[in-house]
Amino acid sequence: MNAPTHASHLQPNSHTPVVAQRPVPPEMIEALKARFGERCSTALVVREQHGRDESAFSVPPPSAVVFAQSTDDVAEVVRLANAHKVPVIPFGVGSSLEGHLLAVQGGISLDVSRMNQVLRINPEDLTVTVQPGVTRKQLNEEIKHTGLFFPIDPGADATIGGMSATRASGTNAVRYGTMRENVLALEVVSASGEVLRTGTRAKKSSAGYDLTRLMVGSEGTLGVITEITLKIYPLPEAVMAAVCSFNSLADAVNTTIAIIQMGIPIARCELLDDNTVRIVNQQSKLTLPEGALMLMEFHGSPASVQEQVALVQSIASDNGGASFEWASTPEERSRLWTARHNAYFSGIQSRPGCRAITTDACVPISRLAEALLDSVQEAIDAGLPYFMVGHVGDGNFHMGYLIDPNSTEERDTAERLNTRLVERALRLGGTCTGEHGVGLHKQGFLIDETGAGAVAMMRTIKQALDPNNIMNPGKVFAL
Amino acid sequence: MNAPTHASHLQPNSHTPVVAQRPVPPEMIEALKARFGERCSTALVVREQHGRDESAFSVPPPSAVVFAQSTDDVAEVVRLANAHKVPVIPFGVGSSLEGHLLAVQGGISLDVSRMNQVLRINPEDLTVTVQPGVTRKQLNEEIKHTGLFFPIDPGADATIGGMSATRASGTNAVRYGTMRENVLALEVVSASGEVLRTGTRAKKSSAGYDLTRLMVGSEGTLGVITEITLKIYPLPEAVMAAVCSFNSLADAVNTTIAIIQMGIPIARCELLDDNTVRIVNQQSKLTLPEGALMLMEFHGSPASVQEQVALVQSIASDNGGASFEWASTPEERSRLWTARHNAYFSGIQSRPGCRAITTDACVPISRLAEALLDSVQEAIDAGLPYFMVGHVGDGNFHMGYLIDPNSTEERDTAERLNTRLVERALRLGGTCTGEHGVGLHKQGFLIDETGAGAVAMMRTIKQALDPNNIMNPGKVFAL
Repeated sequence: MNAPTHASHLQPNSHTPVVAQRPVPPEMIEALKARFGERCSTALVVREQHGRDESAFSVPPPSAVVFAQSTDDVAEVVRLANAHKVPVIPFGVGSSLEGHLLAVQGGISLDVSRMNQVLRINPEDLTVTVQPGVTRKQLNEEIKHTGLFFPIDPGADATIGGMSATRASGTNAVRYGTMRENVLALEVVSASGEVLRTGTRAKKSSAGYDLTRLMVGSEGTLGVITEITLKIYPLPEAVMAAVCSFNSLADAVNTTIAIIQMGIPIARCELLDDNTVRIVNQQSKLTLPEGALMLMEFHGSPASVQEQVALVQSIASDNGGASFEWASTPEERSRLWTARHNAYFSGIQSRPGCRAITTDACVPISRLAEALLDSVQEAIDAGLPYFMVGHVGDGNFHMGYLIDPNSTEERDTAERLNTRLVERALRLGGTCTGEHGVGLHKQGFLIDETGAGAVAMMRTIKQALDPNNIMNPGKVFAL
Repeated sequence: MNAPTHASHLQPNSHTPVVAQRPVPPEMIEALKARFGERCSTALVVREQHGRDESAFSVPPPSAVVFAQSTDDVAEVVRLANAHKVPVIPFGVGSSLEGHLLAVQGGISLDVSRMNQVLRINPEDLTVTVQPGVTRKQLNEEIKHTGLFFPIDPGADATIGGMSATRASGTNAVRYGTMRENVLALEVVSASGEVLRTGTRAKKSSAGYDLTRLMVGSEGTLGVITEITLKIYPLPEAVMAAVCSFNSLADAVNTTIAIIQMGIPIARCELLDDNTVRIVNQQSKLTLPEGALMLMEFHGSPASVQEQVALVQSIASDNGGASFEWASTPEERSRLWTARHNAYFSGIQSRPGCRAITTDACVPISRLAEALLDSVQEAIDAGLPYFMVGHVGDGNFHMGYLIDPNSTEERDTAERLNTRLVERALRLGGTCTGEHGVGLHKQGFLIDETGAGAVAMMRTIKQALDPNNIMNPGKVFAL
């Protein structure tokens, strides 16, 4: 259903993101300073801090940074920006991997990290309402006393606003879904500076267009998210985590596929290749068995967890897996998952001075072996340092090509590998991005994946909702 | 977060849907007849059959009915309609409860019921791709041999196209989600007649705007859905179904709330009040215990099902519930759920000649008692015949007010009850429609629920994607 039916647009462009700076008139900066005082900064160090993210791009910083403390602050900035046709780029903690936060057309960085209040906890309804600058770890800390938790966990301690804007997921998505499934309602400041509400705290609704899910994943291009209502979940009665090593990556992947096809409700199902296990061991001072390694977690009642474990052990054993090594205490579990979450940074640190070009393909589960194994082999053959981690239970995996940012050759090699990997994923019925978003880097891939017609429909929606093209312009698609 | 903050727009209008007929030029009818031959009908009986649904409205029928057999057929009709600025109303089996199928502005009914092929079954990925005219029962029949099933089950044997267009759900949604969670990808004919694809077969994606979920629930106003890729699920190893009666409706509701708050993964959790049990018994020739009655189903491994049952029995017993009566054989289960699915029609048949005005509120689970009990009591106090069924595990319940269509007084009473019920649900943080959609009847409620700003954003999207306002005009909001 999703094979490209048109000329290829695959054009990763980490070399030269198009930069067409739009002027920020001095009177707008003055108006911002009059309104926000010290919370509007034009200091170079602050602008530079807000002019980069975890992507490998380098572009000039925004003209100013405003630190919002309320929805009214956000609305005021957007209204001013709209009047002056100046770009506004929402900023949380800067953990985007795809250039979402870069001021490619100039403008104002709107930092919402101080909007970090957990506004309402409704344990009786399994919902919570937060401001966009709340981070996922902060949220879990603040709801811990209720016996509930929020499962979505991208590697970084990202903000809930940023996670909503990129439709993020993480290691628990295989059981609990992504931000798509877990955002119930939003407050949004539209491009004209109007404050809108989408959705309710009811679990389901057929009330008109699904504006909530249109905003989730829109990467700041349709409005600024100022409040998020999320589903939360009872902490499972029993939790067990294990690692299992395999002689070959193929055996580990085939184990994963069988687990998912049998419908086992595994809570986490992650994979690292042997190269990545070595990097993680070194950087996180661990002694994980150095083969292809599955990291798993099981949630449920004690009996149901036992049942899941027995089934998975038997599948792993059939595929040549070693016996499980258990992380039985909460401390051991925490150390294991922290190491997994830090794999990206471990990768970066393993080659001092490098930048990572990261892939994010996601394919139907039956095609995972083909998608993943060939991609890893190509990286090995190319001789480029890399890491490979995967939310493989979802059919999603990441290659991180660790390039010398000053080497054009390495950058070209990484982009060539990236392009082949995405072409393969699309051919197998998958997507170029499972959870990171399009940003700057995947715009050509997006056209290949969904077709020029669907991207034109996205652009039409953008133009209708943001006629002055002020909301994070130049992301998702060229405009 | 969702309390109305503006003047009330609550204005149920089952009396007089605004009808502003737009002319269908004779040359367009001629072009359709030339292209489709006998598959374009202007016979009154065919037009009348396509000019009504299960709502209580009465408006003139469409000018013609075209029976599409392919995406090309659909695209051709839409292109012609767009050229002539003529409304197009997609039609499946006509089971809408909200007037979605009525030609309030005239135009062409586009019947997709002959596009009823299951195109691709991918059991290895737990996905299936179907044409929009496939019904939910047909789909389950055709995938039965794979050991997989599709859980979403509105009462009627609706088409997958119609279920997608209204974001439908049903009795299994408490465990498996709604069409929102279960549609992976779509093929859509846009208002200009272009064929677009949204989404992929990958389980998750961050590739641009979520056009799939924008189309799901758009009630035919943004395009015609011509292909749907769905998630399907392994048939559970063990299934157990039970009924449990209570002395009071409150006890049954409180049992439900406790089940959900404890996170028990119950697969079906339905409620009928005593009045409705009597109606169902009479019409379906059953002997269900005549009190407030919970109908439940449990899916999982044998051990996990036993565990769920033990927990739920204990909660029910704490709330004064009788002991469970089991529907242990597949035949008994099927008879139980068929009776539940037929409750709507049983209600209609219980008062010969009546029409039902149906409510569809859905509230956060902790507010269910307040929302439901007061609504039932108000119906009893008003003395109007009614039925009450609920997907209570989701916080969703339906009142069906059984009115004499010729009695203005009864219609007014029903609308007054409906308005009070929706006002209450919104005050409690809920939605006016959990699964039926807005259609004609809930347009005022939608404004109250989400605010004029959000509805204006929906209208802006509609105008951008359908500038000639040909796609099922006059539904969701006035335009």
